[in-house]
Amino acid sequence: MSPGIYNKSYLMTAGPTPLPPAVSQVMAEPILYHRAPTFIEVYERALAGLKTVFQTENDVLAFASSGSGALESAVANLVEAGEPAVVASAGKFGERWAELCEAYGADLTHLEFEWGTKIDPEQVDQALAGLDRPAKAIFVTHSETSTGVVHDVETLAKVAAKYDTILCVDAVSGMGAISLPQDEWGVDVVVAGSQKALMCPPGLAFASVSQKALDAAADNPTGRYYFDWNKTANGQRKSPADSPFTPGVPVWMALDVALKMISAEGLDNVYARHAALARAARAGIAAIGLERFGPDDDDANVVTGAYLPESIDGGKLPKLMRDGLGITVAGGQAHLKGKIVRMAHCGYYGAFDIIVALTGLEMALIDLGYDAKPGSAAGAAEKVLIEAGSPEPVG
Amino acid sequence: MSPGIYNKSYLMTAGPTPLPPAVSQVMAEPILYHRAPTFIEVYERALAGLKTVFQTENDVLAFASSGSGALESAVANLVEAGEPAVVASAGKFGERWAELCEAYGADLTHLEFEWGTKIDPEQVDQALAGLDRPAKAIFVTHSETSTGVVHDVETLAKVAAKYDTILCVDAVSGMGAISLPQDEWGVDVVVAGSQKALMCPPGLAFASVSQKALDAAADNPTGRYYFDWNKTANGQRKSPADSPFTPGVPVWMALDVALKMISAEGLDNVYARHAALARAARAGIAAIGLERFGPDDDDANVVTGAYLPESIDGGKLPKLMRDGLGITVAGGQAHLKGKIVRMAHCGYYGAFDIIVALTGLEMALIDLGYDAKPGSAAGAAEKVLIEAGSPEPVG
Repeated sequence: MSPGIYNKSYLMTAGPTPLPPAVSQVMAEPILYHRAPTFIEVYERALAGLKTVFQTENDVLAFASSGSGALESAVANLVEAGEPAVVASAGKFGERWAELCEAYGADLTHLEFEWGTKIDPEQVDQALAGLDRPAKAIFVTHSETSTGVVHDVETLAKVAAKYDTILCVDAVSGMGAISLPQDEWGVDVVVAGSQKALMCPPGLAFASVSQKALDAAADNPTGRYYFDWNKTANGQRKSPADSPFTPGVPVWMALDVALKMISAEGLDNVYARHAALARAARAGIAAIGLERFGPDDDDANVVTGAYLPESIDGGKLPKLMRDGLGITVAGGQAHLKGKIVRMAHCGYYGAFDIIVALTGLEMALIDLGYDAKPGSAAGAAEKVLIEAGSPEPVG
Repeated sequence: MSPGIYNKSYLMTAGPTPLPPAVSQVMAEPILYHRAPTFIEVYERALAGLKTVFQTENDVLAFASSGSGALESAVANLVEAGEPAVVASAGKFGERWAELCEAYGADLTHLEFEWGTKIDPEQVDQALAGLDRPAKAIFVTHSETSTGVVHDVETLAKVAAKYDTILCVDAVSGMGAISLPQDEWGVDVVVAGSQKALMCPPGLAFASVSQKALDAAADNPTGRYYFDWNKTANGQRKSPADSPFTPGVPVWMALDVALKMISAEGLDNVYARHAALARAARAGIAAIGLERFGPDDDDANVVTGAYLPESIDGGKLPKLMRDGLGITVAGGQAHLKGKIVRMAHCGYYGAFDIIVALTGLEMALIDLGYDAKPGSAAGAAEKVLIEAGSPEPVG
């Protein structure tokens, strides 16, 4: 038995993610009445800050819910029972769009791509061309958390525009980690959650909705209440802004602080940090001798996936890392269970989190009988970190 | 410039040390009135818990002060102006005993050993034998923070007993990290502070004082007020216990939680954890190619010191690690400035803190032009950690 040396916890999953101390601390402040000016100031500032991170002029609509609530809002506002809808998926979260469309009675065309591959915009184009009736909306995923793959939203937006279809993008794990310039790319709807790269606890979900999508929702007036986009937009557009339902006050206070931190770091620097950490993670994975899961894709900066060696009992690895070493990573989901490991680095992560996670992965693999050389993962990551930039010189 | 990847802080100095979250959190609770039963319960429980960690039946006297206050209490209670006192030192904190004795006007015999070496009990014996008048007290250091050396208190206690001299031990950085069985070894006075291996913030200092030492203090009734041992002992022995001066309430609440954590881990397990982390640190230092500072001593489990390569500007290293990488380690003090680096691991530390500190040290050395192989320090430490015990197997 280890002499208690694994006494700390390291959270390396794609949500919830670790909170910066300033974010945790603000939630311990006295709770505010949500109609008082002190809260409305926080609320309005956070709503404005969201527009910057979403890279949009849209109102970013907010719901007290998990990220799935924001996904549901898109389907509930756009999909009519019996009417055509298209989902293109390549993973568990892509499939959630299909489940939602089915729950709302859509006449669904579901293009399923292999998990770990990218959605092929060409095939999406052909599918849209082949529909009997035009689909009002098509639903895709930005960063697919179950595989680590980042899909080509820019090209998918062009395809959607060609057919005048509203493109809805699940950017829950990617928002704030990798750039998704919504307005520049012409994406109608982008949904996200608070608990990933936005460095907040779970509890808030967002939908950045274009006027075109709001109008489409208005044409489909029934079938939802809590997640109604126009009701939420009308409240948020008031002066002072007003949430139609009680907002989760501490999470808003957290979001306000987190958005200030993102603004102080600078969005481009935030993306560069995620890119550097992901390069370090990929280098470490390779040095251990593991095969990367997913395409060799420099944009996959949210979650790094790797195939586990066939020689070990892969299903034991995440539990061994968590219970034995204090490091929480994710295994594979569904048919990938026991076959891959996923290490997230979206949000409040730094260089040494990657060193810790890779070292722990290496130690767990060795414990399960895999022949890895201690220090190889950390060394490869360290080289990448050094290349990413020397520490600031001091006088 | 690095893209913000060094965004977290790692405190690897020998005090203040990182606090466990439960310790930080309890200090945010509403402050208690120090005469109310709710506080007295905390106070009495913490006083009892201190006896366990000090391995003594003595009353452990507590002062709202830094650790130096507890050192001063020993000198103020035992040393009379013009009377002989002996200090044996081999570092900066050992020298503090001499400064205190001089401040109180002692006829001081100061045995100075080279920094980085151990106090030689033989020479102490000879010095005590050679005194014209017997010294009431002799002052030594347990773990010398400025060098990392742990002195042979057990043998020094035997020497002191031979001359019926009261041995006072500064255990500020060692208490709770390495075993010092006060009663078993017959040490009269052990002083310590809250901010090291006791996992609390600075603000509380302790003196565990034998009845013999209390009696000696009573024979020397003047020259102190705040740090008077018998006044403090009389307050603490009351039922309910009572502090003669206002106790620092939140630090006591922190101490209560920290002592419960130490008790839950088990004192032997706490020592074993410190020993394993120190072995890992020593292995990493050696793998980088640095020479260990101090004797090759398996007891030096509080602070690991290493000579810096002569090829680099050693004075820049701690600042580079702190400002560039977010890792605070200590350089050398006095004549060792720029020559050594000291990495502490006493208190709330775990396996991956050592991996982070060693990797950061390696990166900083490389940045300063030293030829180290990335991953060598982490790899060597990882091997030691694996040998220290596999993670608990899971089903």
